[in-house]
Amino acid sequence: MATVPSYPLAISLGDPAGIGPEVLAKCWDNRSAFDLPPFVAIGDGRSLGAVWDGPIELIDDPRDADSAFDIGLPLIQVSAAEADIPGHPSPSGAHCSLDSLELAVGLARSGSVAGVVTGPVAKEQLYGIGFTHPGQTEFVAERCGIASANVVMMLAGPTLRTVPVTTHLPLSAVAANLNSALIESRGRATLRGLQRAFGIAEPRLAIAGLNPHSGEGGTLGREEIEIIEPAIAALAAEGWRVSGPHPADTMFHASARASYDAALCMYHDQALIPIKALHFEDAVNITLGLPITRTAPDHGTAFDIAGQDRADPRPMAAAIRMAASASVYRAGEA
Amino acid sequence: MATVPSYPLAISLGDPAGIGPEVLAKCWDNRSAFDLPPFVAIGDGRSLGAVWDGPIELIDDPRDADSAFDIGLPLIQVSAAEADIPGHPSPSGAHCSLDSLELAVGLARSGSVAGVVTGPVAKEQLYGIGFTHPGQTEFVAERCGIASANVVMMLAGPTLRTVPVTTHLPLSAVAANLNSALIESRGRATLRGLQRAFGIAEPRLAIAGLNPHSGEGGTLGREEIEIIEPAIAALAAEGWRVSGPHPADTMFHASARASYDAALCMYHDQALIPIKALHFEDAVNITLGLPITRTAPDHGTAFDIAGQDRADPRPMAAAIRMAASASVYRAGEA
Repeated sequence: MATVPSYPLAISLGDPAGIGPEVLAKCWDNRSAFDLPPFVAIGDGRSLGAVWDGPIELIDDPRDADSAFDIGLPLIQVSAAEADIPGHPSPSGAHCSLDSLELAVGLARSGSVAGVVTGPVAKEQLYGIGFTHPGQTEFVAERCGIASANVVMMLAGPTLRTVPVTTHLPLSAVAANLNSALIESRGRATLRGLQRAFGIAEPRLAIAGLNPHSGEGGTLGREEIEIIEPAIAALAAEGWRVSGPHPADTMFHASARASYDAALCMYHDQALIPIKALHFEDAVNITLGLPITRTAPDHGTAFDIAGQDRADPRPMAAAIRMAASASVYRAGEA
Repeated sequence: MATVPSYPLAISLGDPAGIGPEVLAKCWDNRSAFDLPPFVAIGDGRSLGAVWDGPIELIDDPRDADSAFDIGLPLIQVSAAEADIPGHPSPSGAHCSLDSLELAVGLARSGSVAGVVTGPVAKEQLYGIGFTHPGQTEFVAERCGIASANVVMMLAGPTLRTVPVTTHLPLSAVAANLNSALIESRGRATLRGLQRAFGIAEPRLAIAGLNPHSGEGGTLGREEIEIIEPAIAALAAEGWRVSGPHPADTMFHASARASYDAALCMYHDQALIPIKALHFEDAVNITLGLPITRTAPDHGTAFDIAGQDRADPRPMAAAIRMAASASVYRAGEA
């Protein structure tokens, strides 16, 4: 049975030439099989019509999404200057994806929707129209008045949740960019997020080492001793249930995963390799530390397959279910 | 049905105070269920007797292992100066583990056994008695007259095989230790190993990038452009089927894994995180580039649980099956 929030979810369609419209339409088609609560799409209806011949219910007020949801895919129209062809992104499509995102976030901030799921956007196109944020996450954080340093990206699948401490850095720059304060703040945001978005009262956080075998007592690197262990001690002193530093290679098998609620990883691939190896079809990107619920499917615009009816809707469905569940937990604490 | 080589396999028991004797005894107990070919243990029989009350068949000549195998666990005795208590390693046990390893390798080199499976040793104990190699792999290579730079460690499970280009280095030192020649030689050894030990006539090697998103065209690191791509081009020019550099996070899900026979990884955890996340119980360490077959279970001595009947024999069983299969492929090419 689906977790159903009191308000619908808002789903921004992302770039109109990408696979966002297709995967959302497939989600509506399979709303029962995927166990999805009511949602409203935000974007240009023409991008749905280009890849799908199902019914669209145009609405103005998200409160109408519930009653419309059984008749057609509820849509709040955000018109692009021109209609894009799937697989052929344009500046007008980039503007439309940004306007849709902004509207969705605004509805969530005002409480008109239970949370936001963001469809995939094209960063190159956005940069071309003057967008300066590294990605949607930082844009959403800014619109919510939160410094991007205080939000964390979690990748969450059925048996594993991971959070990278550092993200888009060359591997050779990771060690120099790690410090205890950063690990502590990411750890704290993760632990609070496990409480607020996942309803885990006393979350357990496993913290990875940086080096092979967690540095093997300092012989394979000293970051564990000098940077990671002090951060773990500081979090433990605040009463949090934290463990580590764990050798990264033995943290992610089934029985190890059962011993914690999330793994805090030191770099991008340390977090993303295991989650994608185990949960490629149903890992969800959820932003923690925001005043609103925000999730996203963990894939891009996939322009190369857009408009070919080949896109897999399961990641979007998983993102919608997680947003529903997270928004219910969040409402419960209010 | 088990792959059965013409000669038995030799299994060195490893440190007599570790879990090596226990897991091998359990393998003999379950030889039918585990589908194991005949093998002969090499080590101190007292370490078996301390944790197991099954029958031991003392033999001198490995050729007697076949007929003895149904009566008891065939053993070539290598006596330690004193009998160790499980969980309490000693210098005499370290000497015994080294003597057992040396005898097993000698039997394989002389052709008296089909291959060698090495039980777990205690490096700290070995260093204490003057052992200077980083591990058993380098020792075996030296006894076979092969420079350790020319052998590679592969971790092989049912749906994934990975090889690290660099191994026990601090993460911050990885980039500086990568070069095209090293990637090429590891790649070549891996490809030849796939032919010789796995019987794959035209092996496909997927080569990972170093940085997030494979460096994203140079913006997240230039090692892909300057080091990895030239190595891939050189291997391709020799006629090998190589691809990459692939973003490491999207290389290890099921459909990606189906597109290659082994993944060449740039650092320890890039190779070990996915293999252990997916195949913790049955990943096997196999050394490629040797004139003999050598495998090992991918776990240590586990002194903390030795003698408690808690050790899982499945990794040792997987190592024995892979040694059998590899030695048959090897014999087939002779």
